[in-house]
Amino acid sequence: MMDMDQDPRKRLCFADGRRKVDYVLVYHYRKRSSVRGSPSQHRLSIISNGSYPLGVEEKDQEGGKDEPAEVVVDVGPPDPADGEKIMIREEFEGNLKDAGLEIEHDKENKAHGHAFIRLHAPWQVLSREAEFLKIKVPTKKSYELREEKGLAATMNEAWRKLNQPFQPKVPHQEQEHSRTKFLSHCFSRDKLHLSQSLFPGILRCPLFCLTGITTLIANGVYDSAFPLHDGDFHPSGQAEGKNDRQLLHDEWARYGAFYKYQPVDLIRKYFGEKIGLYFAWLGVYTQLLIPASVVGIIVFFYGWATVETNIPSQEMCDEDQNFTMCPLCDRACDYWHLSTACGTARASHLFDNPATVFFAIFMSLWAAMFLEHWKRRQISLNYSWDLTGMEEEEVHSHTYIVTLCYSMLTSTAETETHTYILPLVTLNVFLPSQTGHEKLTWRDRLPGYLINISSILFMFGMTCSAVFSVIIYRITISALMAMSPDPEVKSNVRVTVTATAVIINLVVILILDEIYGMVAAWLTELEIPKTETNFEERLILKAFLLKFMNAYAPIFYVAFFKGRFAGRPGDYVYVFNDYRMEECAPGGCLIELCIQLSIIMLGKQLIQNNIFEIGIPKLKKLCRTLKDKERAPKEIVEQPGRRQQWHLDYDLEPFDGLTPEYMEMIIQFGFVSLFVASFPLAPLFALLNNVIEIRLDAKKFVTELRRPDAIRAKDIGIWYNILSGLGKFSVIINAFVISFTSDFIPRLVYQYMYSETGTMHGFINHTLSYFNVSNFKPGTVPSISSLGKDITFCRYKDYREPPWSTEPYQFSKQYWSVLAARLGFVILFQNLVITMSMLVAWVIPDVPKNISEQLKKEKTLLVDVFLNEEKEKLQLIQSLFSRDLTQEQQEELKVSDQTSLPLQTQLGPLPPTSVNHAYLKRLILTRPPVWNDPSTWRP
Amino acid sequence: MMDMDQDPRKRLCFADGRRKVDYVLVYHYRKRSSVRGSPSQHRLSIISNGSYPLGVEEKDQEGGKDEPAEVVVDVGPPDPADGEKIMIREEFEGNLKDAGLEIEHDKENKAHGHAFIRLHAPWQVLSREAEFLKIKVPTKKSYELREEKGLAATMNEAWRKLNQPFQPKVPHQEQEHSRTKFLSHCFSRDKLHLSQSLFPGILRCPLFCLTGITTLIANGVYDSAFPLHDGDFHPSGQAEGKNDRQLLHDEWARYGAFYKYQPVDLIRKYFGEKIGLYFAWLGVYTQLLIPASVVGIIVFFYGWATVETNIPSQEMCDEDQNFTMCPLCDRACDYWHLSTACGTARASHLFDNPATVFFAIFMSLWAAMFLEHWKRRQISLNYSWDLTGMEEEEVHSHTYIVTLCYSMLTSTAETETHTYILPLVTLNVFLPSQTGHEKLTWRDRLPGYLINISSILFMFGMTCSAVFSVIIYRITISALMAMSPDPEVKSNVRVTVTATAVIINLVVILILDEIYGMVAAWLTELEIPKTETNFEERLILKAFLLKFMNAYAPIFYVAFFKGRFAGRPGDYVYVFNDYRMEECAPGGCLIELCIQLSIIMLGKQLIQNNIFEIGIPKLKKLCRTLKDKERAPKEIVEQPGRRQQWHLDYDLEPFDGLTPEYMEMIIQFGFVSLFVASFPLAPLFALLNNVIEIRLDAKKFVTELRRPDAIRAKDIGIWYNILSGLGKFSVIINAFVISFTSDFIPRLVYQYMYSETGTMHGFINHTLSYFNVSNFKPGTVPSISSLGKDITFCRYKDYREPPWSTEPYQFSKQYWSVLAARLGFVILFQNLVITMSMLVAWVIPDVPKNISEQLKKEKTLLVDVFLNEEKEKLQLIQSLFSRDLTQEQQEELKVSDQTSLPLQTQLGPLPPTSVNHAYLKRLILTRPPVWNDPSTWRP
Repeated sequence: MMDMDQDPRKRLCFADGRRKVDYVLVYHYRKRSSVRGSPSQHRLSIISNGSYPLGVEEKDQEGGKDEPAEVVVDVGPPDPADGEKIMIREEFEGNLKDAGLEIEHDKENKAHGHAFIRLHAPWQVLSREAEFLKIKVPTKKSYELREEKGLAATMNEAWRKLNQPFQPKVPHQEQEHSRTKFLSHCFSRDKLHLSQSLFPGILRCPLFCLTGITTLIANGVYDSAFPLHDGDFHPSGQAEGKNDRQLLHDEWARYGAFYKYQPVDLIRKYFGEKIGLYFAWLGVYTQLLIPASVVGIIVFFYGWATVETNIPSQEMCDEDQNFTMCPLCDRACDYWHLSTACGTARASHLFDNPATVFFAIFMSLWAAMFLEHWKRRQISLNYSWDLTGMEEEEVHSHTYIVTLCYSMLTSTAETETHTYILPLVTLNVFLPSQTGHEKLTWRDRLPGYLINISSILFMFGMTCSAVFSVIIYRITISALMAMSPDPEVKSNVRVTVTATAVIINLVVILILDEIYGMVAAWLTELEIPKTETNFEERLILKAFLLKFMNAYAPIFYVAFFKGRFAGRPGDYVYVFNDYRMEECAPGGCLIELCIQLSIIMLGKQLIQNNIFEIGIPKLKKLCRTLKDKERAPKEIVEQPGRRQQWHLDYDLEPFDGLTPEYMEMIIQFGFVSLFVASFPLAPLFALLNNVIEIRLDAKKFVTELRRPDAIRAKDIGIWYNILSGLGKFSVIINAFVISFTSDFIPRLVYQYMYSETGTMHGFINHTLSYFNVSNFKPGTVPSISSLGKDITFCRYKDYREPPWSTEPYQFSKQYWSVLAARLGFVILFQNLVITMSMLVAWVIPDVPKNISEQLKKEKTLLVDVFLNEEKEKLQLIQSLFSRDLTQEQQEELKVSDQTSLPLQTQLGPLPPTSVNHAYLKRLILTRPPVWNDPSTWRP
Repeated sequence: MMDMDQDPRKRLCFADGRRKVDYVLVYHYRKRSSVRGSPSQHRLSIISNGSYPLGVEEKDQEGGKDEPAEVVVDVGPPDPADGEKIMIREEFEGNLKDAGLEIEHDKENKAHGHAFIRLHAPWQVLSREAEFLKIKVPTKKSYELREEKGLAATMNEAWRKLNQPFQPKVPHQEQEHSRTKFLSHCFSRDKLHLSQSLFPGILRCPLFCLTGITTLIANGVYDSAFPLHDGDFHPSGQAEGKNDRQLLHDEWARYGAFYKYQPVDLIRKYFGEKIGLYFAWLGVYTQLLIPASVVGIIVFFYGWATVETNIPSQEMCDEDQNFTMCPLCDRACDYWHLSTACGTARASHLFDNPATVFFAIFMSLWAAMFLEHWKRRQISLNYSWDLTGMEEEEVHSHTYIVTLCYSMLTSTAETETHTYILPLVTLNVFLPSQTGHEKLTWRDRLPGYLINISSILFMFGMTCSAVFSVIIYRITISALMAMSPDPEVKSNVRVTVTATAVIINLVVILILDEIYGMVAAWLTELEIPKTETNFEERLILKAFLLKFMNAYAPIFYVAFFKGRFAGRPGDYVYVFNDYRMEECAPGGCLIELCIQLSIIMLGKQLIQNNIFEIGIPKLKKLCRTLKDKERAPKEIVEQPGRRQQWHLDYDLEPFDGLTPEYMEMIIQFGFVSLFVASFPLAPLFALLNNVIEIRLDAKKFVTELRRPDAIRAKDIGIWYNILSGLGKFSVIINAFVISFTSDFIPRLVYQYMYSETGTMHGFINHTLSYFNVSNFKPGTVPSISSLGKDITFCRYKDYREPPWSTEPYQFSKQYWSVLAARLGFVILFQNLVITMSMLVAWVIPDVPKNISEQLKKEKTLLVDVFLNEEKEKLQLIQSLFSRDLTQEQQEELKVSDQTSLPLQTQLGPLPPTSVNHAYLKRLILTRPPVWNDPSTWRP
């Protein structure tokens, strides 16, 4: 075995140093004994149901003769399944060879350990694959982009210069500003001479085996399968140019590069479209958070600046207007003065001011704009990544791939399918519906669905009970603290209790989040979805539902339920006989919502995103190495010098999908959009988090994970729908927060309906109802009271009739008018904002103008190219004919509309032996068939 | 000239009786003098700016030599433009010939009249066109559809049998139930041997000249251009089989066939996809109206059945509870008894009962279901019409066509473009942006946009003033009638006035509708949209906006504004000093809304759809024949025996788009969905209308119009968006109608909040407020009164404080609580129904399951077919090589991955003369290029 360490590139190649390793399969083995010769006797006939199809056997034997495979056969398998696995492996690899892949096994055989099977996809395979997948490649034909003139050009140039320091130093990125574009068209071996490069796009590995391998990995036949990284990411000493992984590491996956744009094209080139789209999306989201944060800060500072001039909070703090408030609980609590809640009132104003309404509208439009902006960006990326023609094809070709691999796996033997299906189904492997096995009926699916529904209901109950237990905690603690005689404790009661309770909430959320993630995966497996895309969508939907509920349940409680069922003095609502339902602060529930929201959001981000994401992979890696060491302690230590790239890559963490990354961001988007009316700083915190998050994820992908399979994708899939759903939901939630949680509407109603001066003076008095202390039920009068001696009326925050009216303590006319105003506001806000969002979405065209222009231009040019090509071909053939054919034959071909039947039909699919020159030429020419009666062939 | 009347088919052919006429161009000429010889001297050089490109001239002369055109040149044109027109015609026809079309002129030349130019598209042109448009054709490969077993199959069979009488007897339709499907793939001349038919789909005429012709028709160069009908629609005596037009006439375009399904496939085949989709859509809509009508009738009869047991209307009619109502106007009106309005109250109940709420929810879901159902149907049709791969391609190819035709027209001479542009712009012809002329800047567009906005605002004002003047009419008439002493007149006052006013409204609507249609077209022309699709969309949007406003403004007024600003007794609101603002009936505004709606809907349908649609075309035709007779009275009379199909077709009306047909249906859909809560019978009337409408339209298309160009379309375009917008809008409108126009909410509030017994008894009393007659302002007391002697309090319908409260005549607590309930209901209804609609849309998959399965299957099979084909080709070529090549050459080709450069690149585009056999073979084989260092060519 050669030592190839001198050239880092050779570390990525087969033993011959030329064929690059495209893909690596790994399996674990224990004992081994090399058996040479045809392995077909050991084949699947053992596990098939006795009916071994002849065709397969013949094919296998042929393959066996062709190249006597060096097979690792377990002679005395300790586990009876091991023998099967070896045979499946053999057959699978045989099929791969049949498909044209080149395979290299480990030359040296050890007693235990991991065996690496390296695959190389030759040009033939790649080009066939590229044709199937309709991958587009640039042609030689280029065209000039329309040059902008005058002011626009100057502006563009200035913008480009200004942006220069923010651009990553990546070779490809610089091309973006060039004025010349190359036409691209679907790769086709027939049109190779038109292509600029002869390599079909960025197909790194023969994708069509992937799904088959997923099945085999799930069955334990293989340990793992991954494409190789482009070498080491540490900057090498050689000056001859960095590989892509190094480039990505230097220009993207560093915290130092946080201010730079992401090299999206390079990311896509290295990791594939799907991951490229994720980072592009994250980039767009983060970028758009900047204006939202700025407006949020302005709104916050507006609240800050106006807090001194705000009449309601002045009135609350005014010690002269000393409102004597009713006790907050029966017997144990004392009367209290409203001015003691002055602090909360002032803090409330920071978030509960007219600017908040503006901000809520702004953020709803922002969400609409974000989605539109992303759509445009996505289309731009699709265009520059040559995915424009893909459409739904992708899904179908994917299904096709599944079929292909499956049939490869089962060798087209119908009877064998069943032996596979049972373990596969239990392992939740996605079986295409058309491979001949019986379809799952609703009887098979019903138990899965039932478990699904009941589990989700159970989870829902769990979340609710978690929220409820925190409420109980709050009620008891606040009751205890309210009984304390210390006035300072009392005034801070609310903030303290809220803060501690929220931290408990946070911990509960973090724990349940992990549980729910696992539950969602388990539930989706029970449903047995048909395709992988289907599986992913259902999983995402379920996980989102559960995690969303989990993260937002306590916030929803504070926003809409807290204090609504507290009753009134003299008629308080109790839970468990003893504890009063909690009430909101006199300054409004908004401040509590704000505390709740900020702690959960920040805590979740800090703990989950950063600590979990950094810590847990490290921990996992430690576990794995410990386990490996335990299994085969010698080997790893023994050969540190000659470790190939596949050994290094195998030591990395496997990539397990983008779902957690997206989920995290979507939940964050919820914080930013749903309750933004109560916490204008949310976008700012999200922005700060995301700037770190991008680099954290980048580091993870470049240095800590095995290279993921490059998956083609046109869009971010179901996440877009979830985002757009959240955007719509946020409108109504914000409408309710503004009208019901904040005091915006009551203030407005007071100012325009009840205030005599047209100002806010007297608002606090107006919101407080009277209670006659003689109406306290026996045993509920405050037992120890410092204020209670000469009090006849105490006040409480509600719109109820005074004791002296005909219907004491009933809801007053004010209550109903405020309620009507609140509801009216909800209708107005919801419909106005939704209409505005729709307008925004309608005004911003989905396809950027320059892209649509370029597409048109390209279409026209491409037609020209092909027309020219056709003409040339025709000339070429005619010149050929003039040499080859007799005069009579030429005549026949030139005079059109005379022959009676198409030549092809006449000749039919001739057997290859009888082919002659003329047939071939006719095949190329494909002359038009002509009929005598036009009416017979017109449809 | 031959007489070809014996064979009806020959009437559709060129003089040779074999080449079919695909397209006809018509122009009008006055004097003529036949000039033989090359017409190139007269060419566009006259109108070009002096710089005549040489290449063009040469080409023209060549064309001239080839076939000395028989040209009709105006020697002494009375209009100087006539000479230009002749030359443009010549050039255009020359270009058509260059493109491969075959042209036949009229042999016989008359002094005046219409000249017909007949085009035939030979196979070459059609197949090229089909390749460009990626038209799919069925291949020879077929596959069996999955046979359903057991119960499902029996059910299917039964359903098919049951449906048999409703199926039209059309040959193609019967295939739909066959179990065998043929694969289809994009037409390609290279793959002809795989295709089942050698004719590329349903391309009837070379579409790519269409747009150019639009331009020329707009310029008056041609009179009209149309494809030919398939002969006569009257059943011919020959038994040899009907042509498609006869089939359509017999099985579809008869009122007698009203109960049958439409032969959609045949319609598509005859008229093209766009018109096929319209009728398919109309069919789906009409079909879905059936369940809606049934439910509507049930709801109506529920009202009918419960009118006797309905307590509020009983109470109103109860003469014992004789509420004395306040006079409806000052001084002139008398007090009146509520029981006199008994009739209205009872009628009200027919439409204003709890079932209405259910019906409103039902209809909202129905609308969502209709849209989903249509989506599915559309996808099914796309599939069976082989349009699945079309995507946005269509738009681009359309633009490409525009470019092609335009460049054909301008002969690629850049300088000439300008001479065309000016008249074209003013004539509003759509110029592609890439043909080199300067782009229109915002300066050019601004006036257009300004005129647009101001005109739309003006139209809006016009509609409002029309509505307002009808209101004035109503106010005056009802005031006059209310003053009448006859009690019978008084009780019927409302119905009479409403009915007459609505008829006036209807007339105004019908007149404005026509005006608005024209205004919308004019306004869109001012905007100068870039493409035809763009033009159509803008026109539709504008026309829809104006017509919608026009049709619904009076209905909106009645539903939401009438009676809201009437004031209260003693403080009535007046317009023009004299006339009181009108009020709703004591039974609620709903009955008036119902009358308004039914009369406008029925009237509009009857008058506009039927009378206008039948009458106006007849009138137009009459005009045209009269005009023609006046121009050339002899010729038409002189040759009645030998009229060819193109003469017959030219006599028909030209087809002018589907927009009016769709518009009519969309406005109807608005009636069915928007205010359905007030008029449950709307779906029934719509259904009756549509059953007639389908056959009416069918008759028009088959017998009265020239055959339209077959336009490919995947969907119904912007109409779908308008429908879905209407569906969403209808939810909120229905929510408001139920909560504000009907008495549903007040009844509910009374029952659950105020009623002591929990029943509706006392509801009427509760809704009537008290007015102290002593509070009448001086001069407003009824002057002559039969009841007014011993009255102290009169009643009026409103929730206001009684005179004896502290705030007399202010809105009472009930008012606010009812208002809150109403608003709450709107929020609840809107969000509930929208969520349910979304759920419906989500649950119903867009792609029918069988279609998606078939698509998957086809994809797999198609890949197999092509793989096999490739293999065969390879074998064929290899067998060739084994004969042709030397041993060394074979070696070179067999051992892969050894040659250093791709052969194609090595050889380059060789000049046709130096081509040899080996090159050609290599071209076919397209062998893989190989590199020595794999790292250099991996991207």
